[in-house]
Amino acid sequence: MKIPEILLLEVEHAPGNLAKVLQVVGAAGLAVENLEAIKRSPSHTQWELTIEVDEESGCNLSEQINLLPTARVLGRSDRVFDRHRGGKIRTVSNIQLSSQQVLRDIYTPGVARVCLAIEKDPAKALEYTNINNTVAIVTNGTAILGLGDIGPVAGMPVMEGKAALFDSFADLSGVPILIDSKDPQEIIDAVAAIAPSFGAIQLEDISAPSCFEIEKALIEKLNIPVLHDDQHGTAVVALAALISATRMVGQDLKDSYVGQIGLGAAGIGISRLLLKYGVKGVIGTDLNQDAMQQLESLGGQRASLGELMEKANIVISTTGVKGLIKPDMVREGQVILALTNPDPEIEPEVALAAGAAFAVDGKSVNNVLGFPGLFRGAIDAGVVKFTDEMLIAASECLADLAPGGSLIPDPLDRSVHDEVARVVRNAAEKGKK
Amino acid sequence: MKIPEILLLEVEHAPGNLAKVLQVVGAAGLAVENLEAIKRSPSHTQWELTIEVDEESGCNLSEQINLLPTARVLGRSDRVFDRHRGGKIRTVSNIQLSSQQVLRDIYTPGVARVCLAIEKDPAKALEYTNINNTVAIVTNGTAILGLGDIGPVAGMPVMEGKAALFDSFADLSGVPILIDSKDPQEIIDAVAAIAPSFGAIQLEDISAPSCFEIEKALIEKLNIPVLHDDQHGTAVVALAALISATRMVGQDLKDSYVGQIGLGAAGIGISRLLLKYGVKGVIGTDLNQDAMQQLESLGGQRASLGELMEKANIVISTTGVKGLIKPDMVREGQVILALTNPDPEIEPEVALAAGAAFAVDGKSVNNVLGFPGLFRGAIDAGVVKFTDEMLIAASECLADLAPGGSLIPDPLDRSVHDEVARVVRNAAEKGKK
Repeated sequence: MKIPEILLLEVEHAPGNLAKVLQVVGAAGLAVENLEAIKRSPSHTQWELTIEVDEESGCNLSEQINLLPTARVLGRSDRVFDRHRGGKIRTVSNIQLSSQQVLRDIYTPGVARVCLAIEKDPAKALEYTNINNTVAIVTNGTAILGLGDIGPVAGMPVMEGKAALFDSFADLSGVPILIDSKDPQEIIDAVAAIAPSFGAIQLEDISAPSCFEIEKALIEKLNIPVLHDDQHGTAVVALAALISATRMVGQDLKDSYVGQIGLGAAGIGISRLLLKYGVKGVIGTDLNQDAMQQLESLGGQRASLGELMEKANIVISTTGVKGLIKPDMVREGQVILALTNPDPEIEPEVALAAGAAFAVDGKSVNNVLGFPGLFRGAIDAGVVKFTDEMLIAASECLADLAPGGSLIPDPLDRSVHDEVARVVRNAAEKGKK
Repeated sequence: MKIPEILLLEVEHAPGNLAKVLQVVGAAGLAVENLEAIKRSPSHTQWELTIEVDEESGCNLSEQINLLPTARVLGRSDRVFDRHRGGKIRTVSNIQLSSQQVLRDIYTPGVARVCLAIEKDPAKALEYTNINNTVAIVTNGTAILGLGDIGPVAGMPVMEGKAALFDSFADLSGVPILIDSKDPQEIIDAVAAIAPSFGAIQLEDISAPSCFEIEKALIEKLNIPVLHDDQHGTAVVALAALISATRMVGQDLKDSYVGQIGLGAAGIGISRLLLKYGVKGVIGTDLNQDAMQQLESLGGQRASLGELMEKANIVISTTGVKGLIKPDMVREGQVILALTNPDPEIEPEVALAAGAAFAVDGKSVNNVLGFPGLFRGAIDAGVVKFTDEMLIAASECLADLAPGGSLIPDPLDRSVHDEVARVVRNAAEKGKK
């Protein structure tokens, strides 16, 4: 897996010197992810250069840059770590404790009135507590990003990241809940026990097949919305990207046969949503026979990788296996989404050269666009379950908001998340009638 | 139980008119808790009048005020409810999501580096996540304030209040965890399952005797500090108040026999800490024989209420029973802390008139002074358990910081909480050596 590395460089401030540095970077087989001037002296500029290097192998780029007479590596930047220092979230008080009166209002004795009002009418908890705006982000750390089973505590930076995004894009309070267990029943019991604290539950980075059992049990047991983000959040954004992609190449997604390579949480989630959306069919493949059976139970068909590449006019891969799709497997005119991050099953440019009509990798399908609006919409509608109509409404909204030439909109644009929340809420309210 | 009621009054702005209103209030048997001018016209002033009325009986004060020709009740103020609207806490992001680069640093792909660093060295979670600054505030809602078993959701305003105080006084993130169960084992299992998410556990408003079993099991099971606030937080502040009170009347607390009336969570917690502090003895009484036995197992002695009032030179009551201590039970020179809120076992002025050397009610022993500094200190020291030395250090610190004439310091003074945290940390670090 590739991880970002940030080098601090000092380069003599004269024409051509920066180009020489970038030639060295390119010759090392590395693409520039970001480059930023952070300091100037009369003679030199300091640059922060971000590249992505292989986790295991690292690189000896610094030595090569230091061979240049006009550049020098000052060190590695800790920017990524600095941004995580002290954690990325915190709980804050909405109240300024400025006087004895405020303390007596929000704590004893005043708080007793609010408690009694909620005891008499539990619906008042929606108004006078933050419960309904709080989403538990639950993980057992068994499928963190592409890193696999690294444990719940090592997965915390991802959960805090989700919580930071909930705050930034949906005004929701995310509360990471780390559970050190691989027993689905233990996880179900723990989440059910603490569920009164929350307005919704997001299951996150829990490996298949446990994730299916846990989600199903919690949806049945709880009267608040439960969503496994890796399945459905990812599916929403993938469906949006497919709607956009087929529009671009003049196809109709509903007329398509989709091939799904890899039937883990994300693959199953995408297959399920595509079938609900109404594609002609989903053909899937996975090394795990149980996963193939699960696809069939959803209405899909199993196939070998070869058969799949031959039959499907749209191919989506979520296998975690870099380079799995060889150029000679690509069929003329195929739409290919190779979603494994950061190293896709086939590089988009390779797929296009092999005849694909359209090809992207996982960077174009950022699931940040899904979950904040999905949860905001469900909570605003006051429903207890996510429905397919809500998920599909979100996908169609994201496809419609994608600017020309893009599959999906800018995830940093808050108005996009507001709009997703609005259409999800509408779909939810229609479902209630 | 008394609850605050806030009336909005319009009073003709002329000498003597406000006094007339307050005479009516006094004649109704009500004390003025707060009075604030909130609006002026040339001829009238609007006042916000806070009184405390009996929850069941309410009062017909408004009708009586409206009989005055110069005053009129405009309505009840919703100030207390307004301050709770939308909840009192929220989770916020520490990061401004201002660019694609920030998103890539704090979410994928950058976050992967931080996850891997923690996987390699779990201690790095202290540095790069908020886990260690987060305290779970766990309740099952069975002993909320003096309100009793009103359920966990109705107890949420209290838990959010604690979290607001954690933020304001100790820079800690409080996360309310509501558990809808009265089975101690279920609560133990749920808290143990989610414990990796937190740096410490505060048990709150869980009724006796379950609270003892739950606390004991979690302390044994978890490697983070666990504290039942109703026992030990309250005990810390009560001990501080007793140190101050005995100083004021020229006694030495360690030479005293203390009588503890009521052996619920608070009573047992106070008895335990006093025995650890080194008083001559604790004599206790309760209707529940198991509670009496528990006191004996801590080294105390059981007695009847009459015997206790006769023998003890210091009396503390935490029974929830208004007016339990009759004036003729009070012994000359006794120090009396009647802690039941808001209606004490004996009113301080009645106790003093009956011969007590010193008497206060629960308003003088605000447990807000305990828990923020206790948790901050324990977490800063990196210890896995609260010790009696830490609790006693906090009590002595609070007694030392009490200004002349007061038993304890002002709970709104942040520097007091910082100082408590400092002495608790020191005591914890001494214990480690």
